[in-house]
Amino acid sequence: MKFTTYFTMNEEEAAMYASEKLGYLFGDEFHLTCKEIGDGNLNYIFRVVDEISGHSIIIKQSGPVARISDEFKLSPDRNRIEYEILKLEDKLAPGLVPKVYGYDSMMNCTVMDDLSDHQIMRKALMEFKTFPRFAQDISDFMVNTLLLTTDVVLEHKVKKDLVKNFINPELCEITEDLVYTEPFSDYKHRNDVFERNKDWVSEHIYNSVELRLETAKLKFEFMNHAQALVHGDLHTGSIFVKEDSTKVIDPEFAFFGPIGYDVGNVMANLIFAWVHSDAHQQGEHKQWLEDTIVETLDLFIEKFSLAWDRHVSEFSAKTPGFKEYYLATVLRDTAGVTGLELCRRIIGLAHVKDITSLGGNVRVRAERICLSGAIDFILKRDKFTCGEDYLITMQAAMSKFARENDE
Amino acid sequence: MKFTTYFTMNEEEAAMYASEKLGYLFGDEFHLTCKEIGDGNLNYIFRVVDEISGHSIIIKQSGPVARISDEFKLSPDRNRIEYEILKLEDKLAPGLVPKVYGYDSMMNCTVMDDLSDHQIMRKALMEFKTFPRFAQDISDFMVNTLLLTTDVVLEHKVKKDLVKNFINPELCEITEDLVYTEPFSDYKHRNDVFERNKDWVSEHIYNSVELRLETAKLKFEFMNHAQALVHGDLHTGSIFVKEDSTKVIDPEFAFFGPIGYDVGNVMANLIFAWVHSDAHQQGEHKQWLEDTIVETLDLFIEKFSLAWDRHVSEFSAKTPGFKEYYLATVLRDTAGVTGLELCRRIIGLAHVKDITSLGGNVRVRAERICLSGAIDFILKRDKFTCGEDYLITMQAAMSKFARENDE
Repeated sequence: MKFTTYFTMNEEEAAMYASEKLGYLFGDEFHLTCKEIGDGNLNYIFRVVDEISGHSIIIKQSGPVARISDEFKLSPDRNRIEYEILKLEDKLAPGLVPKVYGYDSMMNCTVMDDLSDHQIMRKALMEFKTFPRFAQDISDFMVNTLLLTTDVVLEHKVKKDLVKNFINPELCEITEDLVYTEPFSDYKHRNDVFERNKDWVSEHIYNSVELRLETAKLKFEFMNHAQALVHGDLHTGSIFVKEDSTKVIDPEFAFFGPIGYDVGNVMANLIFAWVHSDAHQQGEHKQWLEDTIVETLDLFIEKFSLAWDRHVSEFSAKTPGFKEYYLATVLRDTAGVTGLELCRRIIGLAHVKDITSLGGNVRVRAERICLSGAIDFILKRDKFTCGEDYLITMQAAMSKFARENDE
Repeated sequence: MKFTTYFTMNEEEAAMYASEKLGYLFGDEFHLTCKEIGDGNLNYIFRVVDEISGHSIIIKQSGPVARISDEFKLSPDRNRIEYEILKLEDKLAPGLVPKVYGYDSMMNCTVMDDLSDHQIMRKALMEFKTFPRFAQDISDFMVNTLLLTTDVVLEHKVKKDLVKNFINPELCEITEDLVYTEPFSDYKHRNDVFERNKDWVSEHIYNSVELRLETAKLKFEFMNHAQALVHGDLHTGSIFVKEDSTKVIDPEFAFFGPIGYDVGNVMANLIFAWVHSDAHQQGEHKQWLEDTIVETLDLFIEKFSLAWDRHVSEFSAKTPGFKEYYLATVLRDTAGVTGLELCRRIIGLAHVKDITSLGGNVRVRAERICLSGAIDFILKRDKFTCGEDYLITMQAAMSKFARENDE
C-alpha cells in the first residue's frame, strides 16, 4: 500500500502504515498489531503495538467529517495544528504533553507516545482516585504554555506570526456556538436538557436577559482577544493521568485567545468531579477535590506572578501596577469561562459523564447546584480572585439547594 | 527595460514602467512624463501624466527601507496590504478612497487614481479652508470600513480569514513604539520635545505613573483586540480633500485592531487644526473646526447605531443592551487614542505641521493645551460619550492655560 492519497484507515491499514512508514520507531525486527481505541468525536485513534518488544505508539487520524454530528464539517488542517502545538507545548512545558514523532499531511495523521499506562482523568476521578501532583502539574502547564506565548513575553513580531499560524476558524466556530451561544438560547434547537430540569433551565437561564448580555460580551472577547496560545479544550477528558504523571492531549482547538479560557475549563471540570463525588457521598474524595480546586487556581496565580517577574521584558508590561491589572483580567475571564463550561455541559449538546452517569433526583440536584454556581461565576466574574472564592460559591450553591428543597 | 527584478525607480524609469505596463490606462496614443511628488516617509510617489490627453495616474512604490529612519526596516509586503485594503475599502465605502488599477508584486508598486485636484487636508486646514462635507464623509468612511469588517457583521470564518490576511507585524510595531510607548517614557531616546516644553513634559507626562499604566493597558488592547479592519494611520495627512470630495489614502498600517484607533486619530488631528486656527486667531475657522469636531463624533455614533440595526445579524450581538455596550467600548478606546495621538505628535519622533509651524510662546501654549487635554482623554476615557465632551475638555484646557499664565 502506498498511502499517497488520503483515506480513513481501518485497524489493518493503520498497522500497515506503521510498518511501512514508522519502522524506525520499533528497531530491527517487529511484528505490529493495531486496535482502534478512540471514543472521541473528531478523530480515529489507533494503538499500534510491536508484539515482539511490547513497545507501542498512537496514530491519530483526522476523519474528513467530525464524528460528533454531520453538521460540523472540519478541514483536516486541525491535525497539523495539533502536531505543531504539541511540539511547541513540549518545549514550553516539558513532560506535560505526549511526545510527537511525526505528522503526515497526506494521510492527515499524527504519530505520538502511547499513554496506555495513563488513564483519562475524568474517568479516574469518577472512580474516586486522587492525583497528588495534579494541581502542581496543571498550574505549571497553564502558566508555561499561556504566559510564555503572550506578547508580554514574546517579541511582538514573533507572537503575531504565531497568531497567524494558529488562526483556527472551524474549531473556534464550534466553541462560539456550543459554549457561548446555544446554552443561553437554544437558538439552533440542539440543546439537550435533562427532562426534569427543563423548567428550571428555562426560568433561570433562557429567561435571563442579563445572562444573555454577559455571555455575549464574553463571546466577543473570546473571538477577538488574541492574548495567548490557549489549548482551547482543557477539560478532564483531555488530560491523561497516573499517580506520578500528567499529560495534556488533544490541542486541536488551540488558537490565540484569552488565557482564562483554559483556566476556567479546568476549574469547571474539577467542579463536575466534585458534585459527582458529593452525589456518591465520597467525603474523602470530595475533600481532596475541594483542596485541588483551591490549590489549582492559587498555584496558577502564584506561579503566574513568579513567571511574570522572571520572563517579562516588554517595556510597557513592566510598568508598576500592570502585572496586577493583567492578572485581574485573566481571573475575571477565568470565572466567566468556568460558568460557561458548567452551563454548556449540562444544557448544551455535549455532556460530561460526571453528570450524565447520575440518576434521577441526584442528577437534578447536581445539575442545579452547578448551574446556580455558574450564574454567579458569569454575572459576578470580577469577584473571583482566588481558589477559595470558587469553593465558597459552590458550597453556597449546595446549601441553597438544600434549603430550597428541605434536604 | 524589463522590470523583472525589484529596484527603486527614478522618474524616468517610472515613466517607462507606465508606458510598458500601463498603456491600457491611456488609450491608443500617449506621451508620458513623470515627476516624483512624495514627501512621505515610507514610499516613492510618482505622478505620471499623458501630455496628449492630460490624463494622469499615480505609481506608489515601496522602498526597501522606510525613509523615516534607517532604524525602521520594513518589508515591501505593505504595498500588497495597501492595494488589497484600498480595493476592499472602495467596496465598503464607495467614492471615499482612490481607485486602484493594479499591484505589481515584483516592483512592489501600486497604481492608482491621481488626486492632484485634491489637497492634503492638514495643509488645507492650515490655510484655514473649510470642508462642509468632511464630517459626513469621514463618519461614513469610518462606520462602513470599521463596523462592516467586525464579526458582529461578517460571518465569523470570513472575518478570521481577513484577520489572518492582514496581520501586519512591522507597521504595528512602529505604532506600538511611537504611539503607545515612547511618548510616555522616552526609553529609546528618540523623543523630540520643543525645548521650552521639556520641563513641563517631564513633570506632567514622564513622571506620571498613572499615565504610564493607562497607556500600557491601551497598548495591549491595541495589540490584541482584533476588532475591525482599521486604517491604522487616519490623520489629516492621510486624507485628500476638495470642496466636494474626501478621499482617504495610505492604508499601509491597516490591520485588525480596535475601532477607536481610527476614530481617535481623526479627533486628535481635528484638535491640532483647532489649536492652529486658535493660534492664528482665525475665529471663524476655529468655530467651523469646533462644529466639525462635535459633528464628526456625533455623526459617527448616529451612523454606527443605524448601520448596526441594518447590518448586524449575529445572534449574540442582537442581545438587548449589547449594541450600547459595544459602542461604549468603542468610544472609550476613541478617547484614549485621541489622547495618545495628541501626545505622540508633540512629544514623540513624528510631529505635525499644525504645531511645529507655530513659533515661540504660541507653540508653547498650543502644545500645553493639547497635552493637558490628552491627559484627560487617556485617564478619564470612560467619560467621553459624545462630540461635545471633546470640545468641553479642550476649551477647559485652553482656559486653564490662560488662568495659569495670566493671559
